[in-house]
Amino acid sequence: MYKDQIIIDGLQYCYWDRSYFESLQRSGITAVHVTIVYHEMARETLSRFAQWNKYFELYSDLIMPIMNMADVKIAKEKKLVGIFFGAQNCSPIDDEIGLIEVMRKQGLLIMQLTYNNQSLLATGCYEKHDNGITRFGKQAIAEMNRVGMIIDMSHSSEISTLEAIDLSSRPICISHANPNFAHKALRNKSNTVIKSLCKRGGLLGFSLYPFHLPNASKCTLENFTQMIADTADMVGVEHLALGSDLCLNQPTEVLEWMRNGKWSKAMDYGEGSASNSGWPDDLPWFKDEKGMENIYNGLLKQGFKEKEANQILGGNWFNFLESGLKAQN
Amino acid sequence: MYKDQIIIDGLQYCYWDRSYFESLQRSGITAVHVTIVYHEMARETLSRFAQWNKYFELYSDLIMPIMNMADVKIAKEKKLVGIFFGAQNCSPIDDEIGLIEVMRKQGLLIMQLTYNNQSLLATGCYEKHDNGITRFGKQAIAEMNRVGMIIDMSHSSEISTLEAIDLSSRPICISHANPNFAHKALRNKSNTVIKSLCKRGGLLGFSLYPFHLPNASKCTLENFTQMIADTADMVGVEHLALGSDLCLNQPTEVLEWMRNGKWSKAMDYGEGSASNSGWPDDLPWFKDEKGMENIYNGLLKQGFKEKEANQILGGNWFNFLESGLKAQN
Repeated sequence: MYKDQIIIDGLQYCYWDRSYFESLQRSGITAVHVTIVYHEMARETLSRFAQWNKYFELYSDLIMPIMNMADVKIAKEKKLVGIFFGAQNCSPIDDEIGLIEVMRKQGLLIMQLTYNNQSLLATGCYEKHDNGITRFGKQAIAEMNRVGMIIDMSHSSEISTLEAIDLSSRPICISHANPNFAHKALRNKSNTVIKSLCKRGGLLGFSLYPFHLPNASKCTLENFTQMIADTADMVGVEHLALGSDLCLNQPTEVLEWMRNGKWSKAMDYGEGSASNSGWPDDLPWFKDEKGMENIYNGLLKQGFKEKEANQILGGNWFNFLESGLKAQN
Repeated sequence: MYKDQIIIDGLQYCYWDRSYFESLQRSGITAVHVTIVYHEMARETLSRFAQWNKYFELYSDLIMPIMNMADVKIAKEKKLVGIFFGAQNCSPIDDEIGLIEVMRKQGLLIMQLTYNNQSLLATGCYEKHDNGITRFGKQAIAEMNRVGMIIDMSHSSEISTLEAIDLSSRPICISHANPNFAHKALRNKSNTVIKSLCKRGGLLGFSLYPFHLPNASKCTLENFTQMIADTADMVGVEHLALGSDLCLNQPTEVLEWMRNGKWSKAMDYGEGSASNSGWPDDLPWFKDEKGMENIYNGLLKQGFKEKEANQILGGNWFNFLESGLKAQN
């Protein structure tokens, strides 16, 4: 039964308020990986944490912070929505290796090494050339391994991602992206990457952001579960999960911030274009509190066993995080 | 006559105090490109400017700030040492394109796109792979061109340097490095780079940092002037100047800061090694207030005409900066 399971959404960046938290609670989702940062640097990241501390205080009847998987069990028991944090960029550590541990202690459990562009650590998927993991990047990976901060390569380029998988002594994740075989996009991943990721115990979260999907906003639930089934045929079910990339109720300025940060004077349209610059249309089957349950039922209809659907909806994230968040001995 | 000329040292990072400023004044140097930042980010850079504002207040009998070449003429007339600022890294702009103009107005006249490592803008000379100018880097170059902030590629890698020369609509500089033909080092420059730089009106400042020189600390004045003569044979005299990279009276911690910044937990030895981790020994002919005059006389002895020696000692920097520091129309 869907409602009895631990359901984890491996990425959201919605407009956070009481009304949305209520909807999350009704959705049956146990825990959400919340993007706390796109481009914010260390100082600004602290303000984001402060803002979330206020949410935890204001909405303690709906949400609670997650630092480990014991917390997720408590959230399930208390019928609260667990919130754990990740950064889509390495901007929270500025240029300082020591800030990895500082941010981890503050509650930054997951961090992407780069967001679309070249970072100090690795190359993003929109750069023309990819020089892999940098000198600083190698040290950062070792340090993230040490303190139990999960490496996420969702927005990274091919060579950088393969090198990160290889250099990391612990499994890494691609929290929200789809296979290139289902929809070719700079943001999606090659079979080489997906196989290498999974072979090393990593995790792939399927994205529901229309620009990452076959047929974009016209992608059907069947298209989506077919993509999961095809990927499972390639690498097995135990590495597959969801990272919806759901960005509900956000104004266009937020999309522009995601795409442009502070680095661009000219408008950068990311996966969109000048003539298609706004948010993509919602998927009718994944736009409200019924979304996760729709996917669960879709997976069963696709032929997945109940246990497999449970793994994909949350069990795999749970196991991956339980191991990955522990500090290294 | 040496003393009548405008003498410009295109890079120093000495321990700044009254005693050293007095020595600079006696040396006959008219203006010095002072490194204000190695790894400092925006906020820390402001503190460096504040520190220098204090120096200008305390030592107004010895030094004055330079914002343009008219100021250099005033410095010469008043027998003060003119100080103009550059950053060895793009860290002062954090991740924000708009900080280029902000820093330029504050007095940051020159900025390297990268210091040894990969930056947000370009690849440094110690990275294994070089992916050239990044997406942000392209915008930063255009913005630096617009506001009249000089691009410096001294610590950048080959492809990034060639691309910067090419992408920049205005001549750029390599303020302190030597040709690889004289001493092979990751920090030194290929003939391809030097020719491309000069063909586009750029400027090369010869370094006196022993690790960049043939025979290191045993490099003779004749070795040094021979290197200049060989380079002049290749690209002419009008593109050649000095950027001594003089780091007098600095403790080892400063060397470690230059090499490690905040990015490395393990000690990085840069051009040195674990068994040779300290400052290189001074060159006997370039370690005090006689250094520049020694080079001047050495150039004459090498066969340079007096006018050519004047160009190399300061005239070329003057002309390059006079044009390069103007905002674009």
